[in-house]
Amino acid sequence: MTSPTRPTLDFWFDFGSNYSYLSVMRIEEEAARHGVGIRWQPFLLGPIFRSFGWESSPFVLQKEKGDYTWKDMARQCRKYGLPWRQPTRFPRPAVLPLRIALVGATQPWMGEFCRRTMAMNFAEDRDIDSPQAMHDLLADLGLPAHRIIEEAISDANKLRLRRQTETATEKGIFGAPTFLAGDEMFWGNDRLDEALAFCQAAAGSGAA
Amino acid sequence: MTSPTRPTLDFWFDFGSNYSYLSVMRIEEEAARHGVGIRWQPFLLGPIFRSFGWESSPFVLQKEKGDYTWKDMARQCRKYGLPWRQPTRFPRPAVLPLRIALVGATQPWMGEFCRRTMAMNFAEDRDIDSPQAMHDLLADLGLPAHRIIEEAISDANKLRLRRQTETATEKGIFGAPTFLAGDEMFWGNDRLDEALAFCQAAAGSGAA
Repeated sequence: MTSPTRPTLDFWFDFGSNYSYLSVMRIEEEAARHGVGIRWQPFLLGPIFRSFGWESSPFVLQKEKGDYTWKDMARQCRKYGLPWRQPTRFPRPAVLPLRIALVGATQPWMGEFCRRTMAMNFAEDRDIDSPQAMHDLLADLGLPAHRIIEEAISDANKLRLRRQTETATEKGIFGAPTFLAGDEMFWGNDRLDEALAFCQAAAGSGAA
Repeated sequence: MTSPTRPTLDFWFDFGSNYSYLSVMRIEEEAARHGVGIRWQPFLLGPIFRSFGWESSPFVLQKEKGDYTWKDMARQCRKYGLPWRQPTRFPRPAVLPLRIALVGATQPWMGEFCRRTMAMNFAEDRDIDSPQAMHDLLADLGLPAHRIIEEAISDANKLRLRRQTETATEKGIFGAPTFLAGDEMFWGNDRLDEALAFCQAAAGSGAA
C-alpha cells in the first residue's frame, strides 16, 4: 500500500541547545533530499532538565563533558561547513524566540527564522531573548514583526509553549534535538540522517 | 615531514559499557582500514561516574534516557550487523575481564578476547565477571588460561587497573568509549570514524 501523504518527521528543538543548532541549520536541506516533511516542534528544554533535578545543562554541570562539548562542536561545525563561536552565555534563554517559532511553525519563513536565530546564538554570540533583536530579525525577513511578536507573547501562545514542554515530557523526550517518526525516537544531531532514512522507509512500506 | 611510526589511537573502554560494545566489535577492522594502530586502554568507568556523584550508569539513573538507549542499541547493532540482546543485568560488573584485558593489551589475542567478552555481555546476556567464564573463554582461544588469570589477579595488576582509572580521570575522560589521538578527545562510538580519520591526517602532516 502506498501512502498518498508525504512522510513527516517531528523535530523537537530548543534555540538554547548547541546540538539543536547543528540540526536546525541542515534539516530542511536533508529532509528535502529524503522527500520527508518537517513538523517543527519548538520547546523549552530547561523544565525537562529541572524535572531530572538538574539546575542547568549537563554541559554546565559536568565540567569535563562541557569542555569536551565545545571541542566537539568546533569539529562538527567544521564538518558541516557551519560558522561557530562558543557562546559567552550558555545556555542562552530563548523563551521569546521559541514563542515566535510556535507562531511560525507552519509558515514558509520558519526555517529561515530558525537558522538566523541559531546563527545569532552560536555564530555571532548574541543574545536572542530580546524583543529588539527578534523585531529586527523578523523585519529583516520582510515580515510584520510587530504583529508576530504580539501574537507570540499573547497568553494563548504562552500557554501553547508550556503545553509543548508537557507534550515533550509525555513523549519521553529527555534532550534536544529529538526526532520522532511516529513513536520511533532518535536523539541527537548524530541521528538526524538515520531518522530521515527511517521515516522515508516507513512511508515507502506504508507503515507511516 | 613524514612520520616513520604508524599513527596510534588510544581506545578507552569498559566491558560493562554498551556503546563500548559497538566500538570493540569494529575497531580493529576500521583502524586497519585507516592504517592506524590501536592502543587498548581498559578501565573502570564506575569510579568515574561515582566521582560525578552518580551511583550507576546514567542509563539506569535516568529512565527516559535508558529506555531510549536500548532502542538505539538495537538499531545501531542492526546497522553494524552485530548481534544484540539487551542485558538482564546492566551495567555488568567487569573487573576480572578488565584485569585480563590489561594483561593482554599488547598481545595478539587482545582483539579476539575483547570481542568474545563483549559478545557474552551484549549478545548472549551472560555474566562476564566470573573466573570460570573467563577461564573457559581464554582456554577456548588456545591460551594458558590459568597463568593469565593468575597474572590478572596479582596485586601488581590490580594496582595497574586502579591507575588506569586515575589516568582516565587526569585526561578528563567522562564516559566510554573514549578515543584519544594525542590530546584530541573523541567521545562515543559515533565518533570512532572521525577519531581514526583525525589520527590518520595528523600522522600524514607529521603532527602526531
